[in-house]
Amino acid sequence: MAEEIERKFLLKNDTWRSLARSSARYRQGYLASRREVVVRVRLSDDTAFLTIKGEANGIRRLEYEYPLPIVDAEEMLDLLCERPLIEKERFFVPYGDHLWEVDVFAGDNAGLVLAEVELQDPDEVFVRPPWVGEEVSEDPRFYNANLVKYPFKSWSTDG
Amino acid sequence: MAEEIERKFLLKNDTWRSLARSSARYRQGYLASRREVVVRVRLSDDTAFLTIKGEANGIRRLEYEYPLPIVDAEEMLDLLCERPLIEKERFFVPYGDHLWEVDVFAGDNAGLVLAEVELQDPDEVFVRPPWVGEEVSEDPRFYNANLVKYPFKSWSTDG
Repeated sequence: MAEEIERKFLLKNDTWRSLARSSARYRQGYLASRREVVVRVRLSDDTAFLTIKGEANGIRRLEYEYPLPIVDAEEMLDLLCERPLIEKERFFVPYGDHLWEVDVFAGDNAGLVLAEVELQDPDEVFVRPPWVGEEVSEDPRFYNANLVKYPFKSWSTDG
Repeated sequence: MAEEIERKFLLKNDTWRSLARSSARYRQGYLASRREVVVRVRLSDDTAFLTIKGEANGIRRLEYEYPLPIVDAEEMLDLLCERPLIEKERFFVPYGDHLWEVDVFAGDNAGLVLAEVELQDPDEVFVRPPWVGEEVSEDPRFYNANLVKYPFKSWSTDG
């Protein structure tokens, strides 16, 4: 069974930038974004994927991912996906034995930065980098699918 | 641009059966079934497909289809798709220059039989077989995605 196990954090500062090995720009949208099922179209410079995710169960969820023809992904993003699209730059940051992903959001979510680490097992030990702050793994506001309906720019500063 | 152009009919009688060349059993379910976007998982004996359809515009709609690993399709049908699943046997019936598909539904849609013909162009001429009755191409009740929410067994006999 395909499964994604992921922990997600806010950032304390910008010191991760000097450690980033590479980055990619993503444009992604949702064909479905219900609590039970998410269907995502993601386009980067030279690849596109369709991803299906089940309901989150703590930090685990079912996940299936398939490559898409780029022209199909572009059409689906333009014609079928919910608005607004999610735009972000993803930085790949090796730390300890793991490859962290730091997402710097743009567009309606500009100002939001999130760090993620994917695990093989929920209890897997990992080194927590000093630039990582509060954990938000189980806070649905930070699910990318929810950042379409409630983008970061619409969040009030007092909570 | 990928597009599906399809006309759909009720059946007048059973005489198509003697013309059927082959048939396949389908089990299919929906990850999304909104008016704007449908995401379908379809499993037959030896193949599985993920299909994404846009909003119907008369008899036309956007359509994208990709093969799926059978084990993934089985998991998605069991764990992620809306209930009930659609079960049907599809008969392939050559008539004139076209290959008609006659769907005999089972489960919660038992009793419903629909004939479809796929066209390359909305104005394409085709021979209407004598066993074909009322056209229901633009009647949303007969969209398979809607047969999940409102299965045939729940329809009242007086309309």
